[in-house]
Amino acid sequence: MREFWLKPSVAATFLPDHYSKTTLASGNHLFLGLNCFEPEQSQAVHTHAEADKFYLVLSGNARMIVGGTARDATPGELIWAPAGVPHGVERARERTVMLVGIAPAPKG
Amino acid sequence: MREFWLKPSVAATFLPDHYSKTTLASGNHLFLGLNCFEPEQSQAVHTHAEADKFYLVLSGNARMIVGGTARDATPGELIWAPAGVPHGVERARERTVMLVGIAPAPKG
Repeated sequence: MREFWLKPSVAATFLPDHYSKTTLASGNHLFLGLNCFEPEQSQAVHTHAEADKFYLVLSGNARMIVGGTARDATPGELIWAPAGVPHGVERARERTVMLVGIAPAPKG
Repeated sequence: MREFWLKPSVAATFLPDHYSKTTLASGNHLFLGLNCFEPEQSQAVHTHAEADKFYLVLSGNARMIVGGTARDATPGELIWAPAGVPHGVERARERTVMLVGIAPAPKG
């Protein structure tokens, strides 16, 4: 069953005017996707009141904000944004790909 | 807030007789942890009837089973095991570290 075996890095897509969102897998409980940033692109700080979220940086470097603290995030770093904690991407310093997971999965 | 910024690779631990489980983050909706395998260690095929799960191979190489199909999984590969789909690790071919996510988070 091919859809059980995924290669996130090859699913990366980029847009000129805004960061790109890609769906990798979506179940009844968990959503997995990519957020892909060109240099200088950002994601507004926002909060999921009823969902836990994580980002895992797969490539690149981005200045991220979680819970009011900003830090540069690099490959291999996991950013944990549990329900109620504001999070976003202030600025990608270079082309950056992040695996993102959200639970419960947003209703389509 | 230090606990929002995690480095999964440095949290890896290994046991001589069985694969090791480590918790990275656990919220009301999503659990994130590591499964770490020494060569030849395995994880019995099992099914979560009411939870979606993924593995992301961070390092190593392991023969995995999902939905009745076995394949070698290497760094950067994401294995998606939605609710009801049997999954496990037949055999680690070398020392292997996997990020694991489960939603809903198991009740402690």
